[in-house]
Amino acid sequence: MNALGKHLLIELEGCDPGKLNDLEFVRETLMAAARETGSTILGESFHRFSPQGVSGVVVIAESHLSIHTWPEHSYAAADVFTCGTRVEPRRGADYLVQQFQPRESSVTEYPRGLIPSPPAVQEDQAVGIPR
Amino acid sequence: MNALGKHLLIELEGCDPGKLNDLEFVRETLMAAARETGSTILGESFHRFSPQGVSGVVVIAESHLSIHTWPEHSYAAADVFTCGTRVEPRRGADYLVQQFQPRESSVTEYPRGLIPSPPAVQEDQAVGIPR
Repeated sequence: MNALGKHLLIELEGCDPGKLNDLEFVRETLMAAARETGSTILGESFHRFSPQGVSGVVVIAESHLSIHTWPEHSYAAADVFTCGTRVEPRRGADYLVQQFQPRESSVTEYPRGLIPSPPAVQEDQAVGIPR
Repeated sequence: MNALGKHLLIELEGCDPGKLNDLEFVRETLMAAARETGSTILGESFHRFSPQGVSGVVVIAESHLSIHTWPEHSYAAADVFTCGTRVEPRRGADYLVQQFQPRESSVTEYPRGLIPSPPAVQEDQAVGIPR
């Protein structure tokens, strides 16, 4: 089975609440994480909540990145969801961990769109088949 | 442990490719799914790809919903991520399944932000404690 998409679910615990409540820091960090994966950025939507917390999404040609922060719990939930073989979602996840400096973090990869692999082609059959 | 957020990962297989490639249908359906959960919509970003496929995200006060479609595989990956007790993410997931009418679907709940439960309070201790 091949997966059409790779979805990384990133838990960031024990972060600096000041960073988690700083809309511009969160926005710049998620946008930079998208660039780290090698993605093409298409759109974004970020919001700061009262009394605290930030949510944001970056839509990329290869799917999306998102983040939601709970400064009162020093916690953020981030997602890096990409498709295709040209991008490197782990680099985006690593960048988020570097920037938010959580006391504890986890990255769980969840494959999306498991489709049957194409049938194996014998070398002699492959001649002349357009790729 | 309590989870700050509920993240539903929704796999929609065997959908009508025409629906999956229809930007307005996909947009209206995801926005309606957000309303079904009882969420407050804050922003959105949708894109149609060439030659096919649609991506979209709705940012809500309670986190986000997203969808990415692969009409060539009759497949879509959708997410409904909410926090708080006032919203009902399952209703959003059910609505997406109703509208896309997949041949097969799955909804996996992934808890986000597992934090320790507050200590249990004895009834006699609870008197006078503001809630």
